[in-house]
Amino acid sequence: MFKAERMAVLAEGKLGVLTSKTAACMVRYRPQHVVCIIDSTTGGQPVEKVLGFGGDIPVVGSLQEALALRPDTLLMGIAPRGGALPQAWRKVVLDSIDHGLNIISGLHTILGDDAEIGRAAASKKVGIWDIRKPVLPIEVSRGLLRTKTGHVLLTVGSDCRTGKMTVAYELAGFLNGRGCKAAFVPTGQTGILLAGWGVAVDRVPGDFMAGVTEDLTLKGLAAAPLAIVEGQGSLIHPGYSGVALALLHGCCPDGLILCHEPGREKIEGYGIPIPALSDLVRIYEEAAAPVFPSKVVAIALNTYCLSEQAAAEAVRAAQAETGIATGDVLRWGPEALCGALEGVL
Amino acid sequence: MFKAERMAVLAEGKLGVLTSKTAACMVRYRPQHVVCIIDSTTGGQPVEKVLGFGGDIPVVGSLQEALALRPDTLLMGIAPRGGALPQAWRKVVLDSIDHGLNIISGLHTILGDDAEIGRAAASKKVGIWDIRKPVLPIEVSRGLLRTKTGHVLLTVGSDCRTGKMTVAYELAGFLNGRGCKAAFVPTGQTGILLAGWGVAVDRVPGDFMAGVTEDLTLKGLAAAPLAIVEGQGSLIHPGYSGVALALLHGCCPDGLILCHEPGREKIEGYGIPIPALSDLVRIYEEAAAPVFPSKVVAIALNTYCLSEQAAAEAVRAAQAETGIATGDVLRWGPEALCGALEGVL
Repeated sequence: MFKAERMAVLAEGKLGVLTSKTAACMVRYRPQHVVCIIDSTTGGQPVEKVLGFGGDIPVVGSLQEALALRPDTLLMGIAPRGGALPQAWRKVVLDSIDHGLNIISGLHTILGDDAEIGRAAASKKVGIWDIRKPVLPIEVSRGLLRTKTGHVLLTVGSDCRTGKMTVAYELAGFLNGRGCKAAFVPTGQTGILLAGWGVAVDRVPGDFMAGVTEDLTLKGLAAAPLAIVEGQGSLIHPGYSGVALALLHGCCPDGLILCHEPGREKIEGYGIPIPALSDLVRIYEEAAAPVFPSKVVAIALNTYCLSEQAAAEAVRAAQAETGIATGDVLRWGPEALCGALEGVL
Repeated sequence: MFKAERMAVLAEGKLGVLTSKTAACMVRYRPQHVVCIIDSTTGGQPVEKVLGFGGDIPVVGSLQEALALRPDTLLMGIAPRGGALPQAWRKVVLDSIDHGLNIISGLHTILGDDAEIGRAAASKKVGIWDIRKPVLPIEVSRGLLRTKTGHVLLTVGSDCRTGKMTVAYELAGFLNGRGCKAAFVPTGQTGILLAGWGVAVDRVPGDFMAGVTEDLTLKGLAAAPLAIVEGQGSLIHPGYSGVALALLHGCCPDGLILCHEPGREKIEGYGIPIPALSDLVRIYEEAAAPVFPSKVVAIALNTYCLSEQAAAEAVRAAQAETGIATGDVLRWGPEALCGALEGVL
């Protein structure tokens, strides 16, 4: 694999913490490797102005402007619904290849398998890292984790984009900093980008999702006595619930961390009501029970859109409703959730 | 696609109603197109002796013997766990191609994409129908079925191989015979073989399983006011639960038919206890509720391994425990389940 030390990150029309997850996470966790963000709708200002963090990394309006900053890689920093490649981005990808940039993409469309893009990359000798391309061979679940040594935590959610990746990543980092060895287990494109390994479970054929999850979790447990698995989707999501259940049954978690954005009342894009947190806790615990009983041990709220006061109030309300330790790992750090982990570890 | 009017069906070492589902279903529903079964362990007798039905279709011990019966097609009638192609079968496939037979396969291994097999097929100009190969492009679920006109039934199960395909197929046939138009919606290899359309949902990447299910169900509803969707796996299956939940949320069923084999106490291959039927009813209804509330309206037992008396007793016991109409569609016909459907249709 090529190095990606000077990334131009495409977030066209969507730059935001909730709308361009991958771009925002790269700015948050790998700012030293981001030379700019490309978004014509917010271009011309520093990224801090748009996201609230990221300092003076510039947002530029076009690939042409980005090239002046000598990037070595174009990273697709957004994922449209369905993960296909929009026609407008195809041109950005081809122009980037033409200028010798490597490409990193987490789209469902495997860019390296696209005839035109594959041909262009070969002729310019640039690399394409399709993060979502499953690595074969893959196995069905062998049920090995039910008798595992070591412990597993899984982040689960009320919906997509509620912080499952961030909470797992932050918690693993925090625990490692305290001398408690923990492995972050990446199951989605941004987590894989950050960790440099993993499989995008949502791209794996249905029959193999739990098996891939098992395999990733075993790798995590080989590296540390605690594996913190990045969850995907939600058990109540009409489109992605199957992925969420495969992860839940595939990793046999000892504890669950429920991620939610306070104020979000409906599943985005589907209008299905999100139940109360206490109902979500029950839904996850009952779904886990037949295969490997597990409890929600902590609730991680994503209060990015709230004031400090409203955020504190949301945490208080969630904790009062559920009786479960609640916090926001980005706003106040993961410490509030860690006490609750002791019961399961 | 080629015609398959004289199939030799490979069921090597596994011929049985529960062990070679596809082979047994072809014998049951398409006997006129089956010239023989290949299984060296039961070869030399009529299939009726082994399965209890199928008349004098011969079981032969080898491809060589099968060729004497002038087959036009080799059908892979068994699916090993994980769906890969065992080495011994590779030779049977290659020899079949060498003798000019077309190949039908529902394995996860896409035979047409295998370099050696693909090359052989091209050189002999024979066709390969990989039933599990997903047809692109595919969409994520659009949530269209929540406001559908028409009705949807879904068969669900306590485990794999409990009769979900058979019950859906039999029920659709029975209702059509009574002038109540119903469309069987195939989601797995055997159903697709029988109906000539459909998608193997367990082979579809996770994010798209519900979308494919939605699409198939809409096709069913375009053909008839009642779509009976073939379920897959089980919500309590450690390997395949994700597929089952995607189907449940993807097709927005008005009613569920729970399929179970009385006496089976554990998930095959995993040793996980199968809960009581009344618990399974609750598990399915609670999993459906957040997206599209649905009730279990009938229980379909697979009493193939029981005596007539034990089967009747199992039906009585299930009905007494759950209060839900129960029957065995193969032993006594689907009529016992039909009364219960009126409440949801």
